Amino acid sequence: MTQSNSHLQPTARTQIKRLPKRGHYETERIYQILDEALIAQVGFALEGQPYVIPTAYGRVGDRLYLHGSPASRMLRSLQAGIEVCVTVTLLDGLVLARSAFHHSMNYRSVVVFGTATVVESLVEKEAALKAFTEHVVPGRWDEVRSPTKAELQGTLVLSLPLSEASAKVRTGPPIDDAADYGLSVWAGEIPLRVMAQPPISDPQLSTDSATPDSVQNYQRGKSAADKNAAL
Amino acid sequence: MTQSNSHLQPTARTQIKRLPKRGHYETERIYQILDEALIAQVGFALEGQPYVIPTAYGRVGDRLYLHGSPASRMLRSLQAGIEVCVTVTLLDGLVLARSAFHHSMNYRSVVVFGTATVVESLVEKEAALKAFTEHVVPGRWDEVRSPTKAELQGTLVLSLPLSEASAKVRTGPPIDDAADYGLSVWAGEIPLRVMAQPPISDPQLSTDSATPDSVQNYQRGKSAADKNAAL
Repeated sequence: MTQSNSHLQPTARTQIKRLPKRGHYETERIYQILDEALIAQVGFALEGQPYVIPTAYGRVGDRLYLHGSPASRMLRSLQAGIEVCVTVTLLDGLVLARSAFHHSMNYRSVVVFGTATVVESLVEKEAALKAFTEHVVPGRWDEVRSPTKAELQGTLVLSLPLSEASAKVRTGPPIDDAADYGLSVWAGEIPLRVMAQPPISDPQLSTDSATPDSVQNYQRGKSAADKNAAL
Repeated sequence: MTQSNSHLQPTARTQIKRLPKRGHYETERIYQILDEALIAQVGFALEGQPYVIPTAYGRVGDRLYLHGSPASRMLRSLQAGIEVCVTVTLLDGLVLARSAFHHSMNYRSVVVFGTATVVESLVEKEAALKAFTEHVVPGRWDEVRSPTKAELQGTLVLSLPLSEASAKVRTGPPIDDAADYGLSVWAGEIPLRVMAQPPISDPQLSTDSATPDSVQNYQRGKSAADKNAAL
């Protein structure tokens, strides 16, 4: 799905100006972050008033899909073709320095700029809904009831090109002032990971519904990505 | 720190219109979500162009503090007094329905609207920096070198009132179509939690710097909150 060695051209909006060495424009890196994260923060402005709405999403190739009810203010606003900024953030660790001032965080984030268009084709809509489902739980699409034509028609799906995007990444230990390295203060990183807890069955589950492997062995994050990459 | 039984008045911007039963306006609930999350998504618009920037933050009473370099475009824009929307999202679980269409997520989110003001007082600035540090690792402030006057003066701190805010919360199992409850498809929730991994010491750590309890036993999320509440 990813285009190896492909780079996006930075634009005035995506060029990382603060701490430019943290900026990345390779599509592979951008797609990996989008695929690992689960929630996008969708930003738009109506008459100067900004809104930031957390939402699920899916990716198919070089397009990001958003969906929801046609009554959603966010989707109604975006389908008019106004500018949107979608941000995704993975928090990888807390960076504890010897001074309060140099505390930081390790993270991987992606920012996408552009305008969204409504997906009219039921075929593309179904592909987007499959991407939403598979993004959350790989393998889930084949385990569940597929969308009906009425469900597809009743869902508003928007498509945003991933042509103007950048990633920003911080890794590694704290950077302290030279004079502080001699202090007797512990410094380093507390890595954070999103971990799946044991699944909770729906109280109304029918007795012959076994927990599938996709759910029982659910993992998110770097180790899961490494495992999948090795398959 | 929280004002029990205090409710914010919903405004045109904070009133939850879609799925209003998920909306909450109690300050205690809003503050708890802000205190548990680590990253805020700060949205603002410049000439109609929206920007959403992930950033750390701190809370003191009914004020949210943002900080960074005076060179930051986000902070320079916000200090001019333009409208800002700050969104914080905690993803608590994946909600797997019997149909693709009814998949959802359990989450707790907060949206804050308002305008930020620059904190000029060094005393308030230091209180804000303490809040940033204690928000990330409770107890850390007393373990590290305090900010110097030059560091305080070189940090831009913005204060945003928490007077116009709302929370949105989804919990519980999936809601399927009545006809789908008989399907032999597993349904339920995969709870997610942010877990601390074993701390990684800075390779340049001096040999007499022991790992403090605040780092060794670091926890985030509901169990940590429950534990702290019980103390």
